[in-house]
Amino acid sequence: MRKPKIPDAAIKRLPVYLRVLEEFRAAEVPIVSSAELAERTGFSPEQIRKDLAYFGAFGTRGVGYDTALLSRRISRILGLDQGVKAALVGAGNLGHALARYSLSKHKDVRIVAIFDADPAKIGTEIMGVTIRPPSELVEVCRREGVRIGIIAVPASEAQACADLLIAGGVEAILNFAPAKLKVPEGVFVQNIDLTIELQSLAYYTSASQSEDEVSRAE
Amino acid sequence: MRKPKIPDAAIKRLPVYLRVLEEFRAAEVPIVSSAELAERTGFSPEQIRKDLAYFGAFGTRGVGYDTALLSRRISRILGLDQGVKAALVGAGNLGHALARYSLSKHKDVRIVAIFDADPAKIGTEIMGVTIRPPSELVEVCRREGVRIGIIAVPASEAQACADLLIAGGVEAILNFAPAKLKVPEGVFVQNIDLTIELQSLAYYTSASQSEDEVSRAE
Repeated sequence: MRKPKIPDAAIKRLPVYLRVLEEFRAAEVPIVSSAELAERTGFSPEQIRKDLAYFGAFGTRGVGYDTALLSRRISRILGLDQGVKAALVGAGNLGHALARYSLSKHKDVRIVAIFDADPAKIGTEIMGVTIRPPSELVEVCRREGVRIGIIAVPASEAQACADLLIAGGVEAILNFAPAKLKVPEGVFVQNIDLTIELQSLAYYTSASQSEDEVSRAE
Repeated sequence: MRKPKIPDAAIKRLPVYLRVLEEFRAAEVPIVSSAELAERTGFSPEQIRKDLAYFGAFGTRGVGYDTALLSRRISRILGLDQGVKAALVGAGNLGHALARYSLSKHKDVRIVAIFDADPAKIGTEIMGVTIRPPSELVEVCRREGVRIGIIAVPASEAQACADLLIAGGVEAILNFAPAKLKVPEGVFVQNIDLTIELQSLAYYTSASQSEDEVSRAE
């Protein structure tokens, strides 16, 4: 069940719209304009109208979007209305933080299983979820119907974890390991590499040298 | 000292090139082709040639790029050759993990200061860096020459932290709080929102419903 070619960047904006729509709903605002959505999200009104049109959501001109309807629609399109189960691999510092963070805040994407190879961690819990050995990964993911995998292990172990997750039925992976994963077609990988983020940020500071300066230095 | 309008997406790829170039250097490979860079990075050879041309790095046709020269050039352009100092605000679960992760792996972007409002944390250390109160933030950042700020506090406190970091001289912020920061022109903000990442990932799973299904359900 693959969907039309909607740009990944637009998909990334949907949860932002969802969050803002939920805020409007909580404030009992029944109708919201693209200008109001723009003000809260930081995206342009044109961008917002274009994104929402991909999903067949057309606001009434001069009036706006039905807050409840649009929120429900985005939630369904993302598959969040029924909840999506996730598994975390790696309960080190980063994994531990991710698990606590996710388990306290996410209701629609729930971490239902955590795996780590460290015998000292196996059997302990993070917010009620028991840490299990990787040997149980495939079976647990299949049994629980896990769709999303989160990889927070060292780069050298990332591919093996991805292989297990995919064997367990995972369709999308959030990868924090600084490694390029090889996955079969149909499996989506989103990489978050903190080293890359910090290093690229340096470009926007005065530590960065211009091309001219670099050329002169050579 | 602002640089020409190079797309942010290209900047994001530079540290990836740098990492792969360092691997080639470590393996004592003096010259590398765009095809070899493509194989290791997952980007297309055309993309790579285009990105590197932004920075005046033109490979010799049919030969390739000088590994050491290109690596040094990218490092300088990113401002990493002399090291860039960063400050972390928020030593909760996420902040703690980020600090440990960054302090053990990054030599070119170094966290030199950590701040948290929790009296129980102030005075304790993460890998040799003492946690200080926010009241010292501006002064410490100025004294140390901190250029990058990392925000890992709850959304409600994020703006106040950003204001302090900017007053302290920070020019680029990596923001993990689910909040839209208002910053003066010239300050770059990169948001990493784990909720958004997980929610948008759900779209790529079979939990997601097609537009047709959503329309029928309404």
